[in-house]
Amino acid sequence: MKRMGLALVLAASVCSAQEPGDFKPATTNVWGAEYPRVDGTGKVEIRIKAPDATKVRVNFWSGPKADMVKQPDGYWTFTTPPLVPGLHYYTVVVDGGEFADPGSHSFFGGSKHASAVEVPEPGSDYYDIREVPHGQVREVWYHSKVTGSWRHALVYLPPDYDAAAKTRYPVLYLQHGGGEDETGWVRQGRANFILDNLIAAGTAKPMIVVMAYGYARRAGVPAPDLTGKPFGSPEVMKAMQEMTAAFEDDVTQALIPFVDATYRTIADRDHRAMAGLSMGGMQTFHITLNHLDLFSHVGGFSGAWCCTSSRSSVITLLTSGRTPPNPRSCSTTS
Amino acid sequence: MKRMGLALVLAASVCSAQEPGDFKPATTNVWGAEYPRVDGTGKVEIRIKAPDATKVRVNFWSGPKADMVKQPDGYWTFTTPPLVPGLHYYTVVVDGGEFADPGSHSFFGGSKHASAVEVPEPGSDYYDIREVPHGQVREVWYHSKVTGSWRHALVYLPPDYDAAAKTRYPVLYLQHGGGEDETGWVRQGRANFILDNLIAAGTAKPMIVVMAYGYARRAGVPAPDLTGKPFGSPEVMKAMQEMTAAFEDDVTQALIPFVDATYRTIADRDHRAMAGLSMGGMQTFHITLNHLDLFSHVGGFSGAWCCTSSRSSVITLLTSGRTPPNPRSCSTTS
Repeated sequence: MKRMGLALVLAASVCSAQEPGDFKPATTNVWGAEYPRVDGTGKVEIRIKAPDATKVRVNFWSGPKADMVKQPDGYWTFTTPPLVPGLHYYTVVVDGGEFADPGSHSFFGGSKHASAVEVPEPGSDYYDIREVPHGQVREVWYHSKVTGSWRHALVYLPPDYDAAAKTRYPVLYLQHGGGEDETGWVRQGRANFILDNLIAAGTAKPMIVVMAYGYARRAGVPAPDLTGKPFGSPEVMKAMQEMTAAFEDDVTQALIPFVDATYRTIADRDHRAMAGLSMGGMQTFHITLNHLDLFSHVGGFSGAWCCTSSRSSVITLLTSGRTPPNPRSCSTTS
Repeated sequence: MKRMGLALVLAASVCSAQEPGDFKPATTNVWGAEYPRVDGTGKVEIRIKAPDATKVRVNFWSGPKADMVKQPDGYWTFTTPPLVPGLHYYTVVVDGGEFADPGSHSFFGGSKHASAVEVPEPGSDYYDIREVPHGQVREVWYHSKVTGSWRHALVYLPPDYDAAAKTRYPVLYLQHGGGEDETGWVRQGRANFILDNLIAAGTAKPMIVVMAYGYARRAGVPAPDLTGKPFGSPEVMKAMQEMTAAFEDDVTQALIPFVDATYRTIADRDHRAMAGLSMGGMQTFHITLNHLDLFSHVGGFSGAWCCTSSRSSVITLLTSGRTPPNPRSCSTTS
């Protein structure tokens, strides 16, 4: 098996030098994978081997969902219209089964390891690794009495962290979206490279960024039975509230104390921020507005504002000039 | 899409509490995935959704390769005989297309993101996360003039690294097998937990472990054309030699200087070791025996001993009591 793996690595490495025209293998491909490939206009060619399949579809989660075309060599192909720059999740559906494209690196989204293709942004390099000082992303595990488990987080430390041994830093807690996990901001989002570049340019202060696993269930509590319950149903909303509250306690009682004990943080509310995408934005609003003693800066990217408890600080801050949130419903701009 | 992802997360979380009998979801599953599951004897149940497929096979790379059985609900199932404890790579073949099981976390092997199932070793916890001091795994990127690119590596730093600010440590360079990548020793192998446990028990000295990406091509050199060339052919062997030599220069000219400049290493041969699995073992023999001025400790796990140059130190050390290695052939015990 090792031999086969090695042979694949060597053989596959041929392909990237043989691309015709403007299409090139995506930067999100595994080493040597010829497909998917992207052209200068953002068109993406997908190619999947499934010689005995009857129907193969490609499913771009925020793009085309289309039948692929079977070729005489047993591969199925599809070329998208130009896609907007950025990272595009996709899967392939082979005779009714949904899978990741083996030519792509895997990115955790939709509660599974999915494929994705990076469509470059012409003229932009703010998200690329550049010749600037680099921070380091650390993988850490902390034990949470709230969940009764070891939990994994990624922690970005700025470039000068090791050398400036007496300097303390502000902390941003940065949460992933629903279906994603703690790896998303680095793997999909390149948060570390963006921070390196911003810090080098002087447009961001050196900071510690903590990216935690956003799912939590209290120790000893069984999983809820949501069989047949649609999104938006009272049962699902209740489960979300319980998960959000468990995560709130995990962040405030386990994660923050761990981070402040482990790294040279400035451990006060004026130097502690939280932000998140979609579900992570909802969690951010819930946690920060319930703990204004802990957080001074709050950010939501397409952040849902459901599922919060009715504590007065939440209502007060969320409803200034707005309709009060309905804890039984969920809205998001994403 | 975020909503769908979140709903999946919440709904999927039901399943783990509903397992009959002795079978439990594998620890290598994504959050909430009911399958694959493992029983106390090491049997593994696989379950794949592909309602319109004609034929679905499961492919355990070092285990059963078998037709799965279609169930009335559109899922395909298969239960293995008892498998030996450890991590077992597998893929599923759906109407001729080979994919990862979306219920499994992805593990980079066979030059792609594959599925794997952890079969526990009864009575053993040497590879588990335990209540001992934990080291941290850092993700680093270093620029290599040899390859003309930024290269990714994982670096394990022992538990007391930050606190013992004047202590310097020996370094082990630990290489993955063919088709795997720099993440394998941590993701598949749990090297960090094993090291934490060994260091806590006093059976290993605190050390830095560097796990680098083992594929390399010299800057400006095009990929070799290996179309139609089988493993073992002169062309493939030549490509392996070139890759091995490029990686040798990357390790000795870029990686080691980066590590010694970045971390508190004891930067001499007496405190520098290298070891590897299969292809990584081959690379270890090649690099260390060509650079005995840099390395004093050498380890090979099923290490191939091909593809080395004919430098005298290699021949001398590899052939003591053995047939001299043939640079045109490759042997491995894995």
